[in-house]
Amino acid sequence: MLDAVNLEEKFGLFDEAWSPKIVGHLNGQLVKVVKLRGEFVWHHHDEEDELFLVVRGELRMRFRDRDVLVKPGEFLIVPRTVEHLPVAESDEVWVVLFEPASTLNTGNVVGERTVTQLEQL
Amino acid sequence: MLDAVNLEEKFGLFDEAWSPKIVGHLNGQLVKVVKLRGEFVWHHHDEEDELFLVVRGELRMRFRDRDVLVKPGEFLIVPRTVEHLPVAESDEVWVVLFEPASTLNTGNVVGERTVTQLEQL
Repeated sequence: MLDAVNLEEKFGLFDEAWSPKIVGHLNGQLVKVVKLRGEFVWHHHDEEDELFLVVRGELRMRFRDRDVLVKPGEFLIVPRTVEHLPVAESDEVWVVLFEPASTLNTGNVVGERTVTQLEQL
Repeated sequence: MLDAVNLEEKFGLFDEAWSPKIVGHLNGQLVKVVKLRGEFVWHHHDEEDELFLVVRGELRMRFRDRDVLVKPGEFLIVPRTVEHLPVAESDEVWVVLFEPASTLNTGNVVGERTVTQLEQL
């Protein structure tokens, strides 16, 4: 508590993709770090807006009607109810997530990619 | 909406220090960018936790019992009710803030440094 959190250091602590780790919490929201490789699954969140801040690599966020490319030093906010498919445009993409504590990674689509027990780093 | 936000580009749009600009909103929280020069004022927030993510320069966060230095690529969460004094350790520091929309920059200490009308970039 009351210590600075170094993002690079946190990303160095794990390797698995699509499994968000908690690195901070405030105001009922969580700060998470996640590594992306390949593509995820189409999903949406009924109640939560999600922020994706790219730290390394490039993220392609696919929407049903368009794609948005998100580069290092850029963030994208996906509003609740909007279907999206995160795709790692680079071999590996490092993303910081900012979202409510209630957010499930696969949103409305519970399946093998769903992570329910998030590790805190 | 649904566009990537480039932080460097947003910081390039203004020069004044200690005047946060809104660059995103989600889940009742705001994403803000702010430039720091010199030191601010001691204050706390009764109801809001604040996240400071440093993008450029070094931020010294002073607490009553210690200091925490926050470097680029690092963030610090200051919990509600904790008195703090942000100080620009470098000539100029670029900081991204995540905090509830209700957050006043000077917290409990309303004065000449208080900004009530935040510009949206």
